[in-house]
Amino acid sequence: MKLVSFETTKGPGFGLVQGEQVADLTGAFAGRASSLRGLLAAGLLAEVEAAAKAAPKMPFDSLKLLPVIPDPDKIICIGLNYLDHVAETGRAQTPNPAFFARFPASQVGHGQPLVRPRVSTDFDYEGELALVIGTGGRHIKPEDALRHVAGYSCYNEGSIRDWQRHTTQFTAGKTFASTGGFGPWLVTADEIPDPSKLTLETRLNGQVVQHTTTDLLITPIPQILAYVSAILPLLPGDVIVTGTPGGVGMKRTPPLWMKPGDVAEVEISGIGILRNPVVEEAAA
Amino acid sequence: MKLVSFETTKGPGFGLVQGEQVADLTGAFAGRASSLRGLLAAGLLAEVEAAAKAAPKMPFDSLKLLPVIPDPDKIICIGLNYLDHVAETGRAQTPNPAFFARFPASQVGHGQPLVRPRVSTDFDYEGELALVIGTGGRHIKPEDALRHVAGYSCYNEGSIRDWQRHTTQFTAGKTFASTGGFGPWLVTADEIPDPSKLTLETRLNGQVVQHTTTDLLITPIPQILAYVSAILPLLPGDVIVTGTPGGVGMKRTPPLWMKPGDVAEVEISGIGILRNPVVEEAAA
Repeated sequence: MKLVSFETTKGPGFGLVQGEQVADLTGAFAGRASSLRGLLAAGLLAEVEAAAKAAPKMPFDSLKLLPVIPDPDKIICIGLNYLDHVAETGRAQTPNPAFFARFPASQVGHGQPLVRPRVSTDFDYEGELALVIGTGGRHIKPEDALRHVAGYSCYNEGSIRDWQRHTTQFTAGKTFASTGGFGPWLVTADEIPDPSKLTLETRLNGQVVQHTTTDLLITPIPQILAYVSAILPLLPGDVIVTGTPGGVGMKRTPPLWMKPGDVAEVEISGIGILRNPVVEEAAA
Repeated sequence: MKLVSFETTKGPGFGLVQGEQVADLTGAFAGRASSLRGLLAAGLLAEVEAAAKAAPKMPFDSLKLLPVIPDPDKIICIGLNYLDHVAETGRAQTPNPAFFARFPASQVGHGQPLVRPRVSTDFDYEGELALVIGTGGRHIKPEDALRHVAGYSCYNEGSIRDWQRHTTQFTAGKTFASTGGFGPWLVTADEIPDPSKLTLETRLNGQVVQHTTTDLLITPIPQILAYVSAILPLLPGDVIVTGTPGGVGMKRTPPLWMKPGDVAEVEISGIGILRNPVVEEAAA
């Protein structure tokens, strides 16, 4: 199944993608789940296909999509998780994954603009595989980990590089408002039995700028979930962004920054294409 | 005013501290605000004292206190913000503040146990001044910043030092479940016209381990709010933790870690005393 979150006049709606149509599930689950996160938390995924039959249909292209999970309890980013990216940054490889956070306001949905902020032009792309937790847990064992995953999506972990390097801590450059694309949808885990067998490509204005396969993740997804859940409980709807491969704009000569008018795409096999135009932050 | 969040059978409640009593405001604002964060978001602080007159009273000591804001959109921590702490860590001073995140599950209220996790004994205290946003905003100017602050509280930014040092990114060691104390209450900003004139002391089992005055913050609160709000909008209920002074346990010989049976306190003049016992995480 492909599940989306979208804007409605009454707040975030959610639905099931059926070809060019979306079955709006918001009404069908009213009182039991008020968002895609709530649907996961209530364990209602198994009821989606039946509920979609009677649900109102809307053209996919008519929707203003939101980030797949607009309101996660946490967005956990894993940095430096492909060797070619570690090498291009000149940073040290570490035995444990580098863990930092983004905040929800840094995300936008598929088709919505990524916003280059007023304070910098160093706006870089980072194509990444994201996963969404379905079943929460603490001290998850690697061998059980994939059972906690509701599904997968594409993420453009947009980064303001000069602010990222203000100090040792990345988050300042990683959580600018509306700089991260997350979508287009959640592909449920039953359709992706092995997330280490995917191909990821990032394109800027149609030019391929990053290309990898997810078997190259230094810390694979089961070990990421074990590490993070040793720290604190994972909850349904939590978002984990697994790291970007080599090819970032900062490390090119000259640097290749995203600028207003550009179109950034992240495509992952078995998931789809996340596409976002780039705009400038409105003037004061 | 001193405002608290506390546990009820129906979810988080909130109230006004009146000496040894707390006026339970949860019912008085039902439908308009379902939490202290909601009260701030709805701009209802001015109605609190009138509402408290008719509200049911409960003994302060009978309440299970929650973190002052149990459900913030974001918890922003500023690291390396006192010179004596920068010096003891041997890290470089930077022109901009070091910005990292904690997640809400890492917080506990006054009187509740701080939990030393199974995976480490390197559990350190960090006494800090916290502020809570009342009026949201983006691109806040330093000269306007204090008008955005609803009030202040004490924070024990408990840190698992070995995990903090797994990589360059601090967050892994800074967001273990139930490792951060936040309370006892929110003192509204009208009672603290100048947050740079406070005295902060951390005690472990009654022994003073950190002592500072808040005029020594390298990046003062107005500049912190300007920096952070250049990145993304601040929202009512957002928590900003402003940094810890020298004296942390990691840098003592031998190191002074918090262990089960200990009692940690953070006292700030004009606010009060945050006190938490330390326990061990339950076995598997």
